[in-house]
Amino acid sequence: MASEQARPRRRRTPTGASRRRAVRSTAHHRELTNPNPPDTVISTDEVSHIHGEAKRFLAEHGIRILLPEARSALESAGATVGHDGDDQRVRFPPELVDAAIADAPSTFTVRGAQSVGDVTVGGDKLLLLPVGGPPFVSDLDGGRRPGTLTDYENLVRLTQRADLLHGNGPSVEPQDVPVEIRHLHFTLAQLRLSDKMPFLFTRGRQRVIDVFEMLQINAGLGPDEFRNTPLCFGNVNTNSPRQIDTPMALGIIDLARHGQPCIITPFTLAGAMAPASLAGALLLQHLEVLAGVTLAQVVRPGAPVVYGGFTSNVDMRTGSPAFGTPEAMRAATASGQLARHVGLPFRSSGSSTSTTEDAQGAWETMFNVLGAVRGGANIVFHAAGWQEGGLVASFEKFVLDVEMLTTLVESWQPITIDNDELAYDTIAEVEPGGHFFGTEHTLARFETAFVDPVVALRQPFEAWVSEGGMDARRRANAVWKQWLAEHDDPVRDDAVMEELADFVARRTGEGGAAVE
Amino acid sequence: MASEQARPRRRRTPTGASRRRAVRSTAHHRELTNPNPPDTVISTDEVSHIHGEAKRFLAEHGIRILLPEARSALESAGATVGHDGDDQRVRFPPELVDAAIADAPSTFTVRGAQSVGDVTVGGDKLLLLPVGGPPFVSDLDGGRRPGTLTDYENLVRLTQRADLLHGNGPSVEPQDVPVEIRHLHFTLAQLRLSDKMPFLFTRGRQRVIDVFEMLQINAGLGPDEFRNTPLCFGNVNTNSPRQIDTPMALGIIDLARHGQPCIITPFTLAGAMAPASLAGALLLQHLEVLAGVTLAQVVRPGAPVVYGGFTSNVDMRTGSPAFGTPEAMRAATASGQLARHVGLPFRSSGSSTSTTEDAQGAWETMFNVLGAVRGGANIVFHAAGWQEGGLVASFEKFVLDVEMLTTLVESWQPITIDNDELAYDTIAEVEPGGHFFGTEHTLARFETAFVDPVVALRQPFEAWVSEGGMDARRRANAVWKQWLAEHDDPVRDDAVMEELADFVARRTGEGGAAVE
Repeated sequence: MASEQARPRRRRTPTGASRRRAVRSTAHHRELTNPNPPDTVISTDEVSHIHGEAKRFLAEHGIRILLPEARSALESAGATVGHDGDDQRVRFPPELVDAAIADAPSTFTVRGAQSVGDVTVGGDKLLLLPVGGPPFVSDLDGGRRPGTLTDYENLVRLTQRADLLHGNGPSVEPQDVPVEIRHLHFTLAQLRLSDKMPFLFTRGRQRVIDVFEMLQINAGLGPDEFRNTPLCFGNVNTNSPRQIDTPMALGIIDLARHGQPCIITPFTLAGAMAPASLAGALLLQHLEVLAGVTLAQVVRPGAPVVYGGFTSNVDMRTGSPAFGTPEAMRAATASGQLARHVGLPFRSSGSSTSTTEDAQGAWETMFNVLGAVRGGANIVFHAAGWQEGGLVASFEKFVLDVEMLTTLVESWQPITIDNDELAYDTIAEVEPGGHFFGTEHTLARFETAFVDPVVALRQPFEAWVSEGGMDARRRANAVWKQWLAEHDDPVRDDAVMEELADFVARRTGEGGAAVE
Repeated sequence: MASEQARPRRRRTPTGASRRRAVRSTAHHRELTNPNPPDTVISTDEVSHIHGEAKRFLAEHGIRILLPEARSALESAGATVGHDGDDQRVRFPPELVDAAIADAPSTFTVRGAQSVGDVTVGGDKLLLLPVGGPPFVSDLDGGRRPGTLTDYENLVRLTQRADLLHGNGPSVEPQDVPVEIRHLHFTLAQLRLSDKMPFLFTRGRQRVIDVFEMLQINAGLGPDEFRNTPLCFGNVNTNSPRQIDTPMALGIIDLARHGQPCIITPFTLAGAMAPASLAGALLLQHLEVLAGVTLAQVVRPGAPVVYGGFTSNVDMRTGSPAFGTPEAMRAATASGQLARHVGLPFRSSGSSTSTTEDAQGAWETMFNVLGAVRGGANIVFHAAGWQEGGLVASFEKFVLDVEMLTTLVESWQPITIDNDELAYDTIAEVEPGGHFFGTEHTLARFETAFVDPVVALRQPFEAWVSEGGMDARRRANAVWKQWLAEHDDPVRDDAVMEELADFVARRTGEGGAAVE
């Protein structure tokens, strides 16, 4: 056992600077295929039973939809609107739900920029996405503060840099931009600083239409072609339990009508907006997804939709959401089973509740990601930078999470077994009790043998102390600054960028889009 | 997306004290069955090929064994000793290796104390073990310092407390006890403070025999019965590449002769003591395990042995060992495949190189544990508290790792799908857009619905700051102190304890065991 201790060899102690130069230069987009068959946590019969109960519930009790246009569309398709004096209640006949599921594609493609290529959603493909939704940002220099457009732009730059992140997110709310024009600047930042899949907020019809126009300008597509070419993605959260509010219903309708992908994600925290049992939270989640998918398919059969699973639990002591819990992992696994049962791509999350970039933050995000990925998720939102239950986008956590994701993904590499790699002769050449440092076999692999970490340090304690004793959080601070400093905007057509800027200027001049 | 933010509800803000009271009282031993089929990273043909090349290597080149007694035993069984003027070299005919593999059991049982029950090693059973081997300990109060017997005793107490840890380890080297008598006090501490499976150091014959006597006293067994009753476990590290030194060879022989389980673990760090390729490191690991297993089976056919896989890589920049790497995970998965190919239980590790209890430390240990567990490990050593590449046993990390292990293990729980848990009527009862806080369904589950964390905090940021802004590391400091304060020695027979104390006193008076 004694020899299972590290014996750090100070052959070359890296300084901060030499480590920074050692960061591997990688392409900024890396396609991922999940090599592992999805885990299961409930039986096939139980999956069918939950699905059946969800359809029964939608027929017997339905959900509330606040947007009249959505209710009308569903009523025309065969749903029943109103009962018991509640004229916002929509009940779904099982055949309507079955038809919607049959119409929704199990896999679809989002057209990417030439530099990135098309992105497949579904099957065994995995897309990782950054933090989305926080009002606040945090970093070690500026502390915890309301997010600005500059912060958002920087998070887009970091997302662009991380080859394992496949699209942009609403990584922080740019609160210094008035809401009427926020969507314009939010979208322009994505299209200017990144060539990854753009994210679209569904916050009212006029804003969605503005963004659609920008995406058409950006891709050089006319409106008809656009409607048959997924270019972006949006996420709609139901107002659990069993309610879809006006902007969310509009979002489902507008994305479907224009053929743009819509992730439908119930916010089913067990013990708060959902029953305090995983089975109950999953039943509620499933019926809400089915309702949203049905609305989308009624508007346009075949519209690309994604099954969003966000079920976790609350901390029963504080009432606060909890993430990275065993319950979140089990729920993600079951959600994947339910999504595959209805033939939809599955979206899940990496999430953390920690208030700082500590061990808790690391394991919460990693466990949530693991539940998602081993549960067969096709999209993992909030996979980097999500802190404090989503209230904060942390720059340091962003970098730490990217390193964890890299470790996970690199662990999927096969092992090459051939004569050269087996090194039979090299093993014979080294004396018993000797070492392989100087062998030709080792020297030939010096640069490429192993994944080079960005944050992780393997340094003798004394050297670490003498260089400042910086923990992973403080080292991550240096890394994101380096990444920002190294950022280059993707190469773009000047005329297109000018047209986009003109559009934003014009719509800003017109006052943007009023709050609906 | 906006609604995917936490909305912490301060229904009841826990103080440190109330959280501590909330720690779930659990039995101190919890049997684990791995629910997932092992991952694979190489093909069945590749597994066979590595096995074949390892046997070819053992026949053509062999390994060096420094103990004459071991060489003689192997020579009597058909091995060839000496060639090329190297009379310590032992070459193994393939039939000898095949016979050894056939003799070694694929599963065996270690007899536990009545309070714990027997422990199965092999199959789909999983045993988690604490940190082993460090010369130093660290905690936030005392800093990083050489380990003492008091430190060791405290680590045994923490191991006893953690229901997911199934045995004791050499958790720190008690450097304040002279080496001649260290094994006596080290063993007495385990038998006095814990009823979990004891660990035995293989540091020379007399010490092993002393410990065997203590184990016999402790279990009330005579020497003959002892030889047919596994009661403890030892770990032997080969001196990679392809060398077994005197104490390690003695350890294999003495454990086998007395029917006590021996884990044989080559120390194959790719790029240092093994080739800088995973295939090469695995080939070296495999042939060294086969050599050790053959020695054990020659001494006593059927002796319980375990395939130890410790292959990771060095950081090529510093020469330091690296753990929690993608390479370590891939190697663990492949090692599991190789162990199952030869029908042996598989031991792997959780390990970390971080110099402090930060995010890096968390993800390294967790990734190493995941590689082990998803690779089908039966024993995971160093699963809690291993820091700085094994130089340090950290009290805070011990607690943090136990919480991660708990999360992982709890994520394996099935989800109950029945009418009560599905909560169909409760979902119908809550208004759309309402919440489930006050429902009978929730109230009935208030205490038991979800796993209660010990370290993880889900607190609003402002409350966290006002209560001191303690990160997970600092909170873990309070937890281990609480665990120590709450420790009760297991109930033991006074006469047995007296006999053990007398034995230690007598052997101490005799000067203990000289260094061999």
